[in-house]
Amino acid sequence: MCKYEKSKEEILKCNEDIKRAFLKRISLVDEISKLESNNKENFSTIGKDINCDEKYAHEYRHLAKSIQLIDKRYLYRQHTKLSDDNEIKSNKEIQKICYQGLPFSYTESATKALFPNKEIIYTDLFEQVFSNVYNNKADIGVLPIENSTAGYINEIYDLLVKYDLYINYSYIKKISHCIAGVQSTQIQDIKQVYSHPQALAQCYEYIKENRFIVINDTNTAVAAKRVAEMKDKSIACICSKEAAENYGLKILNAKINKSENYTRFCGISRMLVKEKNHNRISLVFSVPHIVGSLDGVLSVFSYYNISLTSICSRPDLESPFRYLFYVDFEGNILEHNMKAILFQLEKELPYFKILGSYRA
Amino acid sequence: MCKYEKSKEEILKCNEDIKRAFLKRISLVDEISKLESNNKENFSTIGKDINCDEKYAHEYRHLAKSIQLIDKRYLYRQHTKLSDDNEIKSNKEIQKICYQGLPFSYTESATKALFPNKEIIYTDLFEQVFSNVYNNKADIGVLPIENSTAGYINEIYDLLVKYDLYINYSYIKKISHCIAGVQSTQIQDIKQVYSHPQALAQCYEYIKENRFIVINDTNTAVAAKRVAEMKDKSIACICSKEAAENYGLKILNAKINKSENYTRFCGISRMLVKEKNHNRISLVFSVPHIVGSLDGVLSVFSYYNISLTSICSRPDLESPFRYLFYVDFEGNILEHNMKAILFQLEKELPYFKILGSYRA
Repeated sequence: MCKYEKSKEEILKCNEDIKRAFLKRISLVDEISKLESNNKENFSTIGKDINCDEKYAHEYRHLAKSIQLIDKRYLYRQHTKLSDDNEIKSNKEIQKICYQGLPFSYTESATKALFPNKEIIYTDLFEQVFSNVYNNKADIGVLPIENSTAGYINEIYDLLVKYDLYINYSYIKKISHCIAGVQSTQIQDIKQVYSHPQALAQCYEYIKENRFIVINDTNTAVAAKRVAEMKDKSIACICSKEAAENYGLKILNAKINKSENYTRFCGISRMLVKEKNHNRISLVFSVPHIVGSLDGVLSVFSYYNISLTSICSRPDLESPFRYLFYVDFEGNILEHNMKAILFQLEKELPYFKILGSYRA
Repeated sequence: MCKYEKSKEEILKCNEDIKRAFLKRISLVDEISKLESNNKENFSTIGKDINCDEKYAHEYRHLAKSIQLIDKRYLYRQHTKLSDDNEIKSNKEIQKICYQGLPFSYTESATKALFPNKEIIYTDLFEQVFSNVYNNKADIGVLPIENSTAGYINEIYDLLVKYDLYINYSYIKKISHCIAGVQSTQIQDIKQVYSHPQALAQCYEYIKENRFIVINDTNTAVAAKRVAEMKDKSIACICSKEAAENYGLKILNAKINKSENYTRFCGISRMLVKEKNHNRISLVFSVPHIVGSLDGVLSVFSYYNISLTSICSRPDLESPFRYLFYVDFEGNILEHNMKAILFQLEKELPYFKILGSYRA
């Protein structure tokens, strides 16, 4: 037998030894946990008995850390009394919807798609949407939370922590921009284009081809209104079809944005709604100051075979050197596994909050 | 001896067995890897020999996965020929700096702090900054990349992928807003306040206390210019001290934003600069479609004891259902460990790109 074959056989033997010892060990961990519930943290110490100088000490310490995590996950899953609260909680009698923006903006069309035929309250700033919902002046607030050009909108996440409100609804709106001018104009007359910087960026290829001069405006709907008022054949705007039509503009070209653009909107209320058809949960948390604590947290999700759909960190401005992590994942908050995960994270992490449960 | 003491002792015995078998195993893995470099992936198979129905199969599979990862990390670290390229690469002869924005904007002051006394080229859109640098019309582009209110600015990351340019510089600017009006006014005369929506949001508490009506503008510097032109005692703007002074406005209150606000700017060029004093690396990558592949990637960083400073995912608009992850971490690209990490990730991940190396 050559050296390779021999070593390979020895490895298989080691694999078996590890497996046997591991399976015996976890059954003992299981047994003890049923005996003494106070002592769970200490009895299964592994990895302390190795010297730094020892060869493979680094590798062994990683193994020990993995086994400690497996112990913990197992014990949480098997021996934690989770609440039997399976009560469905719904928002009833939705009357008033609040959003930040203007008539004929993209936010308005998201609001109307989510909540047709409701009373609408407009505000100037996102925080006013939160304070209106918090103070019972509105039942639901509709807010953009993520944008394919601008990214996550941190301000909304901050406000969700500050105001103790919850995401109950999610709506993805594909953004289709058109270029529009006054009725008497033609595309070849256009020299200047007004719009929001994000809309201009999304149509950059088109703007470059046509050598338009761009002028930033506060909002696509404001740009449409402005162009209608200026009555200048050489000036156009980039906005939604609805805004162009509303302000009596002529659509010169439709769908001029190159790639798929979208904005994700959320609906918030005062209650953490729990519905059977929900399939997404959002969290925010911080982790202990240890290298690898983030992968420890994420391994909880893979332990339960759950897919993250988004993760984002940022410095916590309230406490220097602390980071907050925003995570979205697939699942329903009424399920047993989900309760186990949430219970465990809440117990282990320095800061933890459920931001919402909704249908994606 | 009571049952608890007995089980505890048996666990310690299992720990020892696992340790012994594991250390033997990794030394064999090491040995074989020196023999046959082509066969590295297959010889150490562990975890395939367990039946789904077996008790603790789920836990054992997690252990096996951890051991596979430890094998892989170990082999990469020990047996990979990494390039000996320790050449320092610097940007020489920086003459022209390009940025998107206006004189007296926050971007201008970041640009001047990073590159004093250089020739400046202004553009209207972020993408024009990239095309100017790419086409040699500017040496460096300065761009905001993250904002404490708005979050990560995806557009910039997209453009870094599209244009094959690299981040070489980083600069964090604390944002201090003031409220300013015409020279003849007093704070009690003010009724309306113009500014960029982000600046208004950052000063929300102050605005609410004073019951101001807010009006969105495209930019804080534009708002200052507009207020100076309107010459109305009841109208103020929220902007930087520099913008207020430049447009001849009177500062009515300084530092009216409640919390620490900042914007992180980056300087980009055509070259992946490598300097000895760099301490931060930025990456973008995608992961295979398997639950837990993200924690697998992150465990590479904890294996090398490296701290992530930021992580952010978002859907890849070019390929549906694929996510891109943006990661920043501590380290210098000239170090051996760093080369090992980058080599390994590039080899393992479906998509991978170094976005930059810089001093944070």
